[in-house]
Amino acid sequence: MADTAYKNLDRCRAFTALKRLSPPSLKKLLSAERIKSCSIDAGGGLRYNYAALPVDEKIIAALAELSEEQQLIPKYEALLRGERMNTGEDRMVLHHLARGAFGWKVGEAGKEQGEFYRSQLARITDFSKKLHKGELTGSTGKEFTDVVQIGIGGSDLGPRALYLALEGCCEKHMRAHFISNVDPDDAASVLAEVPLETTLFILVSKSGTTQETLTNHQLVCHYIMENAPEVDPARHMVAVTSETSPLASSTDFLESFYIDDYIGGRYSSTSAVGGTVLSFCFGAEVFKTLLRGAHEADSLARSPDIKSNAALLDALIGVYLGNVLGYRVSAVLPYSQALVRFPAHLQQLDMESNGKQVDRFGKPVSYPTGPIIFGEPGTNGQHSFYQLLHQGTEKVLLQFIGFRENQRSLDNRIDGFTSRQKLNANLAAQIVAFARGQENDNLNRNFPGERPSSLLSGQALTPESLGALLAHFENKVIFQGFLWNINSFDQEGVQLGKVLAKQLLAGTEDPLLQSYAELLGI
Amino acid sequence: MADTAYKNLDRCRAFTALKRLSPPSLKKLLSAERIKSCSIDAGGGLRYNYAALPVDEKIIAALAELSEEQQLIPKYEALLRGERMNTGEDRMVLHHLARGAFGWKVGEAGKEQGEFYRSQLARITDFSKKLHKGELTGSTGKEFTDVVQIGIGGSDLGPRALYLALEGCCEKHMRAHFISNVDPDDAASVLAEVPLETTLFILVSKSGTTQETLTNHQLVCHYIMENAPEVDPARHMVAVTSETSPLASSTDFLESFYIDDYIGGRYSSTSAVGGTVLSFCFGAEVFKTLLRGAHEADSLARSPDIKSNAALLDALIGVYLGNVLGYRVSAVLPYSQALVRFPAHLQQLDMESNGKQVDRFGKPVSYPTGPIIFGEPGTNGQHSFYQLLHQGTEKVLLQFIGFRENQRSLDNRIDGFTSRQKLNANLAAQIVAFARGQENDNLNRNFPGERPSSLLSGQALTPESLGALLAHFENKVIFQGFLWNINSFDQEGVQLGKVLAKQLLAGTEDPLLQSYAELLGI
Repeated sequence: MADTAYKNLDRCRAFTALKRLSPPSLKKLLSAERIKSCSIDAGGGLRYNYAALPVDEKIIAALAELSEEQQLIPKYEALLRGERMNTGEDRMVLHHLARGAFGWKVGEAGKEQGEFYRSQLARITDFSKKLHKGELTGSTGKEFTDVVQIGIGGSDLGPRALYLALEGCCEKHMRAHFISNVDPDDAASVLAEVPLETTLFILVSKSGTTQETLTNHQLVCHYIMENAPEVDPARHMVAVTSETSPLASSTDFLESFYIDDYIGGRYSSTSAVGGTVLSFCFGAEVFKTLLRGAHEADSLARSPDIKSNAALLDALIGVYLGNVLGYRVSAVLPYSQALVRFPAHLQQLDMESNGKQVDRFGKPVSYPTGPIIFGEPGTNGQHSFYQLLHQGTEKVLLQFIGFRENQRSLDNRIDGFTSRQKLNANLAAQIVAFARGQENDNLNRNFPGERPSSLLSGQALTPESLGALLAHFENKVIFQGFLWNINSFDQEGVQLGKVLAKQLLAGTEDPLLQSYAELLGI
Repeated sequence: MADTAYKNLDRCRAFTALKRLSPPSLKKLLSAERIKSCSIDAGGGLRYNYAALPVDEKIIAALAELSEEQQLIPKYEALLRGERMNTGEDRMVLHHLARGAFGWKVGEAGKEQGEFYRSQLARITDFSKKLHKGELTGSTGKEFTDVVQIGIGGSDLGPRALYLALEGCCEKHMRAHFISNVDPDDAASVLAEVPLETTLFILVSKSGTTQETLTNHQLVCHYIMENAPEVDPARHMVAVTSETSPLASSTDFLESFYIDDYIGGRYSSTSAVGGTVLSFCFGAEVFKTLLRGAHEADSLARSPDIKSNAALLDALIGVYLGNVLGYRVSAVLPYSQALVRFPAHLQQLDMESNGKQVDRFGKPVSYPTGPIIFGEPGTNGQHSFYQLLHQGTEKVLLQFIGFRENQRSLDNRIDGFTSRQKLNANLAAQIVAFARGQENDNLNRNFPGERPSSLLSGQALTPESLGALLAHFENKVIFQGFLWNINSFDQEGVQLGKVLAKQLLAGTEDPLLQSYAELLGI
């Protein structure tokens, strides 16, 4: 690992070579044979299909060279071995370790960090079992039925997306709700719906200082005291926080589960941040199965062969389209209603990780980095923004996700076909329509085609495939960060707004802040 | 109106003049005085503030000339008077008329279309009253408690966004749920939660041929017959459709409410498409108040003075930033949890309307048209994608929305400030942080600023301000369509995918479709 060298994308010979190649026409490229052959195991039963992307063998070869020149696999291995890849904050990056070990120890100062993650998982498992057996009850002696996660950003988006994704395929012990926004209407709408006597709250803040989360904690406690004086908030609340945070030593909580500084918020869904709520709702075995799927994807991402490494190839093709062909926006389009909030999670994961303008040495980069990410489930999106995707003037890279089976049992043959068949027929049709287009002399009805897309598909959305899906995108984002030579693990760009908001509340004399404050009636 | 001339943006002298002007530095431009003075009445108690946009008096003057040269107001007036502005489909565009008349009659072939909208609204009002008085009950004699809207695209996104926006400020007679996706897991998850005996379904499809909606209708009927044989589906289902659709003559419905061909799906929230579910849930008076707010915004949009016409100025500045300064993505950032799905509605409204590459005469345009739209509520977004907005390499135009008051009564002073104060302090801080930035020798902590944003703000999110908010964006989109000389009212780009999906199910021999079908197990 001592040999890894960090340089910017535009300093790579392979990138210069890549820019000289002509992208193939998708209309000409896409064939039945290509669809069959361009498919890679992505873990958890998922396949990554890149047939409808404008990359021929020459470009693939150039991408392989780029992967080698930028030492993507050695850097990924270094990360897995505990090198301090979060350079800005001088920290290791260990979310992979929270889902499985690779046969070596990782840690600093004599600590084995894998042991720490395993011990927290064991504590969550025990606690979940007590909840489900009814050994742990609310302060009035009733079994818990509902759980409310109070957290924001990574403590909200990932866990929420995963909860919604698993609701249809896992037996539910408890219902989950989420409070994130400092807008008090968010907490009010959730609190109006939950039975306080049988609700367990999970407060999630790594630092224990997140303004929104601490405020919502107090708001919830006030609400309980006013509306259910028989309920003792401290016996209805657990914390997920770091061992050094102010929350860890608080007596406000029935129990605390710990995270550490080596897992950033947006990568924390497979730590106690996601593990607590998912284990409470679906049982710890479901969460562990999700971890297995993620670990399988993490393991596959170690392959130096780009044709057998889905996350790596996805990352490389994304950078080719972004930095050579000018695609600056990417749409995530799951043909699965259960993944309704998965695009919102990927939006944070990708945009907060790679929305950077300085390299890992703090120098400005001279090329575009992380793209804009948005998306909604299909077929809903087809009736919304697909018009622009098909006939607009913007270039958007499309990332489809699909499954062969339903999660739930409801389906019927209506007009000859099941809803599943219709759903997947639409997915197949869209990929072809985007790539091939269709000529029409009436230009208003002309489809130019040449719109690139990839497809991640599997048998069904299960804890295992969901874990692999999550890890696929995490690893893709990390590989792209290596390609751009940026630090994908800090987020200094979120600081200034926080600082100014505090100054405003502290009575700043800043005329701009004051004027907007007046306008907003603060 | 006979004088209106249609020409492409790049043929406008005013646009050429605009391109020659240098945009001002936001850091230098933004001042307390500017924040106070750059504020326009947007209707419904809303103000549109454009202080933090890089437009000085010279640019404003050039935009005013562009407005005049492209005859934006005469074209809007022509639309209001019933000219066939939907050229592709040769139809009038009358959603404005559904919320209020302007003192003249609109219609063709002797019909007065305003009368039609008023009569449907009266029928919805009567029906709602009967529901709320308990005069209309389910087939087992129980009062209805829940309503499920079955619809997709414009029959889902707008009504759903408005329902969620009003839930916190209006008394609720019935709870609403929504089934949209042809993925049967969508219907299954909703049906598992509603009490069938007391649930009223609203089937919404203008044409009566929408594949997803018809399939979900049948799926729901099967489900009721299997799970609640005592419930008669036909007495638990109303339709919203056009008078000529196959649904209109069906006996499957307790009642049908009508829409016409002059209101496109994405503009239909203020027609029976949104009016039915909103009136059932909140009472017809709430819906009528929303219409009043929208009508006020529609009326303000008639002003030829761009400094007193919020929608017009918003549209012009958007085109300036998009077509001169290179902003191709716009983020909608409501600091209101109640507006959680409003960005998803605007995504359809804008991207389906203006994601076009041919002008209204069917010739290719040579410039970018409609932008990518995405967004999430603040402060949630701050902990997600704001990193990229502050420090990324992409240009994103920001559209903030905020209110002085909460919708619900829950709030507390915690650490000295209410949640509302913290929410709005964050909003004010973000606008300033984006515009002004902050220098730091550590470039990883440097904020370049110069990030433009606008702010729509009001006292509170109410039916009236919500109506104005909706109409503001509808009118903005229409003005931008006029600027680009495109037809904002058709959506030919959604056809090809539908056609191919049908071919696939019909047993196509198309090898590409077949290969993807095999991959997806169809």
